[in-house]
Amino acid sequence: MSGRPSPHAAPLPEPSTIPENGWHCGHFFYRFRREAMAAPLTPECVTQFCAALSPPDDVAPERIASYWISGHEADFGLIVMDPDPAKVDAIHQSLIAPPLGQFIEGVWSFVSISEVSEYVPTIERFRDRLISEGADPESDELKAKVAAYERRLPMMNEQRLRPEFPDWPAACFYPMNKSRVPGANWFTEPFSHRNKMMAEHAQSGIAFAGKVSQLITVGVGLDDWEWMVTLWARNPDYLKDIVYKMRFDIASAKYAEFGPFYVGYRAGADEILDHCKVR
Amino acid sequence: MSGRPSPHAAPLPEPSTIPENGWHCGHFFYRFRREAMAAPLTPECVTQFCAALSPPDDVAPERIASYWISGHEADFGLIVMDPDPAKVDAIHQSLIAPPLGQFIEGVWSFVSISEVSEYVPTIERFRDRLISEGADPESDELKAKVAAYERRLPMMNEQRLRPEFPDWPAACFYPMNKSRVPGANWFTEPFSHRNKMMAEHAQSGIAFAGKVSQLITVGVGLDDWEWMVTLWARNPDYLKDIVYKMRFDIASAKYAEFGPFYVGYRAGADEILDHCKVR
Amino acid sequence: MSGRPSPHAAPLPEPSTIPENGWHCGHFFYRFRREAMAAPLTPECVTQFCAALSPPDDVAPERIASYWISGHEADFGLIVMDPDPAKVDAIHQSLIAPPLGQFIEGVWSFVSISEVSEYVPTIERFRDRLISEGADPESDELKAKVAAYERRLPMMNEQRLRPEFPDWPAACFYPMNKSRVPGANWFTEPFSHRNKMMAEHAQSGIAFAGKVSQLITVGVGLDDWEWMVTLWARNPDYLKDIVYKMRFDIASAKYAEFGPFYVGYRAGADEILDHCKVR
Amino acid sequence: MSGRPSPHAAPLPEPSTIPENGWHCGHFFYRFRREAMAAPLTPECVTQFCAALSPPDDVAPERIASYWISGHEADFGLIVMDPDPAKVDAIHQSLIAPPLGQFIEGVWSFVSISEVSEYVPTIERFRDRLISEGADPESDELKAKVAAYERRLPMMNEQRLRPEFPDWPAACFYPMNKSRVPGANWFTEPFSHRNKMMAEHAQSGIAFAGKVSQLITVGVGLDDWEWMVTLWARNPDYLKDIVYKMRFDIASAKYAEFGPFYVGYRAGADEILDHCKVR
Amino acid sequence: MSGRPSPHAAPLPEPSTIPENGWHCGHFFYRFRREAMAAPLTPECVTQFCAALSPPDDVAPERIASYWISGHEADFGLIVMDPDPAKVDAIHQSLIAPPLGQFIEGVWSFVSISEVSEYVPTIERFRDRLISEGADPESDELKAKVAAYERRLPMMNEQRLRPEFPDWPAACFYPMNKSRVPGANWFTEPFSHRNKMMAEHAQSGIAFAGKVSQLITVGVGLDDWEWMVTLWARNPDYLKDIVYKMRFDIASAKYAEFGPFYVGYRAGADEILDHCKVR
Repeated sequence: MSGRPSPHAAPLPEPSTIPENGWHCGHFFYRFRREAMAAPLTPECVTQFCAALSPPDDVAPERIASYWISGHEADFGLIVMDPDPAKVDAIHQSLIAPPLGQFIEGVWSFVSISEVSEYVPTIERFRDRLISEGADPESDELKAKVAAYERRLPMMNEQRLRPEFPDWPAACFYPMNKSRVPGANWFTEPFSHRNKMMAEHAQSGIAFAGKVSQLITVGVGLDDWEWMVTLWARNPDYLKDIVYKMRFDIASAKYAEFGPFYVGYRAGADEILDHCKVR
Repeated sequence: MSGRPSPHAAPLPEPSTIPENGWHCGHFFYRFRREAMAAPLTPECVTQFCAALSPPDDVAPERIASYWISGHEADFGLIVMDPDPAKVDAIHQSLIAPPLGQFIEGVWSFVSISEVSEYVPTIERFRDRLISEGADPESDELKAKVAAYERRLPMMNEQRLRPEFPDWPAACFYPMNKSRVPGANWFTEPFSHRNKMMAEHAQSGIAFAGKVSQLITVGVGLDDWEWMVTLWARNPDYLKDIVYKMRFDIASAKYAEFGPFYVGYRAGADEILDHCKVR
Repeated sequence: MSGRPSPHAAPLPEPSTIPENGWHCGHFFYRFRREAMAAPLTPECVTQFCAALSPPDDVAPERIASYWISGHEADFGLIVMDPDPAKVDAIHQSLIAPPLGQFIEGVWSFVSISEVSEYVPTIERFRDRLISEGADPESDELKAKVAAYERRLPMMNEQRLRPEFPDWPAACFYPMNKSRVPGANWFTEPFSHRNKMMAEHAQSGIAFAGKVSQLITVGVGLDDWEWMVTLWARNPDYLKDIVYKMRFDIASAKYAEFGPFYVGYRAGADEILDHCKVR
Repeated sequence: MSGRPSPHAAPLPEPSTIPENGWHCGHFFYRFRREAMAAPLTPECVTQFCAALSPPDDVAPERIASYWISGHEADFGLIVMDPDPAKVDAIHQSLIAPPLGQFIEGVWSFVSISEVSEYVPTIERFRDRLISEGADPESDELKAKVAAYERRLPMMNEQRLRPEFPDWPAACFYPMNKSRVPGANWFTEPFSHRNKMMAEHAQSGIAFAGKVSQLITVGVGLDDWEWMVTLWARNPDYLKDIVYKMRFDIASAKYAEFGPFYVGYRAGADEILDHCKVR
Repeated sequence: MSGRPSPHAAPLPEPSTIPENGWHCGHFFYRFRREAMAAPLTPECVTQFCAALSPPDDVAPERIASYWISGHEADFGLIVMDPDPAKVDAIHQSLIAPPLGQFIEGVWSFVSISEVSEYVPTIERFRDRLISEGADPESDELKAKVAAYERRLPMMNEQRLRPEFPDWPAACFYPMNKSRVPGANWFTEPFSHRNKMMAEHAQSGIAFAGKVSQLITVGVGLDDWEWMVTLWARNPDYLKDIVYKMRFDIASAKYAEFGPFYVGYRAGADEILDHCKVR
């Protein structure tokens, strides 16, 4: 590709690091470097830790949430979102800046951008699907459902692009790919087939309404996996239940490849320091 | 999924980190950081080690057992269970808190929750299976067997959810997945087929009654593998015998993917310190 | 192969480290070793850092650009090009020389050479393709298109071999292979088929003219992947858009294997030090 | 499995860590931590090293042999066998105990148990095989061969369970699995087919009688691979020759998956220290 | 295999570490541990470095060559050959002995033995191939070609077993396996087919006579890959050209699996120290 725009194309936006629609999203997982800690963190380090997780307004990202993480790999994790990628990464940099950085190691992270997936039905596709499922195209019921979807869609898309984080105690985080192996190649399937599989997959999630809330962000071209999944749950039981149930959906069973899973529990800076016994 | 419960659904439980049925389960494997040990552990560190493995009642988890581990990767390991995930993880955090944490490195862990698998037959399915195997539906023998299973099932499920740990000297620990590769995709098999394979697999285990006891906990949505297997054995010979035998079951031969194996021998804190020659 | 040239062959060029056509290309990604930084970098180290990224004319490579990198794996990255491989590697060596090298760790790099791919159509192949697409071999339109391509080709090839780096804020970097697994073996496909797939793949890129500019360099025989992809973008949104779109091209969907992805934002030495809070 | 023995079964042996038939076997590979060695090992560390490899009688395992290892990954390796797993592991623990442990890192190990494989023919199977190969069931020759095998078998099995280590200068060590991928699944093959393949495989070895001696121990349920192979050779040439030849046996060509290979040369503690220039 | 030679076999050679035909070959790649270098290497370390690469005659191996290596993984590399494996490994041990070993880390190595491959045609096979390609068995031309091959073969085999290293500036090093996956299993192909593929593969190399010289050594039974490839080139361009060309040969396209690639440039000890800016 030559870098030369067609002379008849719409004028291109100014160069920018701010996406047109979505937000940058950073998932960061850390452990305390106990091997370097002959003693608990100094008050200076404790202050730096708390400040990094509660940045002053002028550098605060739009969203930030913290969790202590189960298991030996990570002690705590963050999810951060903002239109500006530098603001997202600045949280990470604040945490590992000297002197606290001597005692904290990043163990995994994922860089992604929020978006409205191509599989989210437009009003038209939503209407067509109802008709294909047997609805009468002229019925008032159909019109009412379509109208309701039309009212709901902007709010749902807002939640996809600029989500509020639920206040639930448990969450899990994992990246995934769609497979491209011979015999199970998602990317050679036609859109209609992929769309149908994704619609069925979405149905699996509806059974968990009120129990689990999900956010899918895109890592394609940005990090080592294609998508990042964030699941917030009212109870950790629901995390295993929903992921287990969804694993049987053909979109997952046949096509999904999963990366590392981290499970965590909502906790502020103080709770993390206490749980980890480092002060 | 929208996070909005259906208005007609049963009211949802309060947000909590305590599972409704199972217990949180943590497997932790560690090595002593000999590279940092110019001398044996100080008395302070020895005290911290022993205290971490025998926590006071108010923070003690429901179950905890410790093992010295064969081979160079890990020196010792723990299995911990409790309804509260913070109590499970606190054992880990106590062990690696300053100053002992300078000399201990977590090398592997697994986060899971206990459950009654969908393949455990209900009373009805148990009865149906016997009939399908030729039992007379009206016979007293069938009724007796069903009644016995009905009496036994609550106890067996209790052992699955809140197990007593046997006092045997040997144990092995490993995680596993069911494969989803083209040609061997467990998750696209119908339940009836999976259930049949799991029943046959269970038969393999029955030959080891009194020799091996197993616990299967669920890592789906929580950690990098779908299941965690704990085998306790009267003799380490039986560990290799049962795993070898089961590898030929179609559920394993065709569909199982295995993670790292750790073999260990029951040992208290003092025995671990002595075996590892670190005090 | 015997090392003995045929007596009738053209005389061989003198031994040299300078490629006949392309330039050596180095991609380097680094993190600051926060574990060793009780305090910010000393002025001496800051000076070394800035000098390494702005070398004096006599050792400066033909091209060099720097980026801060999102996520925990790398803090910053470089792309360097020059006919002399020692000049490319010298940038890396300057950065990690004592004393700054105590605080910088190379986390990933890729060694490649620029080239004009065998899939870039010659004038003749360009003309044949137009005809095969329906153009009249004798038409003035065809002649004009071929003449235009003939004028453009040297400039395009110059950009492939000795590219100017665009001044856009975002970039992503990743290596790739063409797969050789049974059922999807790129290297057993005839040239005509590979060429057709690559032409379609190039079409996907044309939609991003003015938004994304790419450089493909060759790692075959030099590093662990066959090709290195550098994408520069006017906005990070376009990075995910183009890579996602291209993933459906059969050349990618069926045959591409991807290595690690790094996304970064154009930044000079000072901006990197500030963003990373290390001075 | 319930852990409850059948009331009619033979009484179970007492819980024990001592296998009924085989011995525990440990393979350990180490490197000297040159990064921590500003000077050669102190006399105290040299003494610890030599003592660990020549333990006093009361803690000495039944078998122990040491080798210096070629290449950068490991400097030396041990193979240790004993009925008691704690005695095997104690050799490892003695080596890495303070203060020597500061300067030695375990880089790989394997935990296994010796056994008589199910593919070793019983007297009956040996006789049947000869007949199936054309021997006359009533011939004196057949009877003589069977009688000879009957005399030899106990000694051969003793060597499998409690082997003498040959005094040859070269050895190689590697673990392996039998594959379970679709299209090459060892564990879904019937015993008769597996047995035939293993018999052919054994034939490949016979050509190396006097040149190579092998020991196969079982890691199933104990470590990350199913089997551990130890080959002792009169000359390192034979190591590559036998492994290359056997790779064409269908049991290997189609079904074997190999882990890391270590090649070493018989050496006592002093020779290792001298070869590694650490004192 | 029993270790008992047949009573009628030729007497076995004495146990030895010296191969009958080939030489031991070590490839070693290192980086300077900049994290430990607050200052350049001391004169003592510089002296040790230079001495290790130019050992005195009594311990000097038959062949040794050194290279600085492009990219972040390794700073320099060595290829060493000798009949005695201890002499090869001693070069490595000299380099990492105290005190220099504090500042040098081995990052990759490969252990192999040189040999004349089974695919090198004997005189007879060479003659048969010419005839099968259409030569007249009685022609003088055929006789002349066979006679020339007969004269050349000992020299070519000498170069395979005990090669002179060319004085060219560029080299690349990589290990490889022949695949054994279902659908592409080299080891289940008959010799005639493998031999034909290898002959075609050799043809690809002939186009690079005078530009590239290769050495193939055997790692089967000795290290983690089956073969090690060393390519020396008059220009680094030829490295990518030959490896790219050969990748389309069916022997590579379908059956080759490649390990890490290292590309380097011929350099003595002084040049390495200067290029790496460590003194």
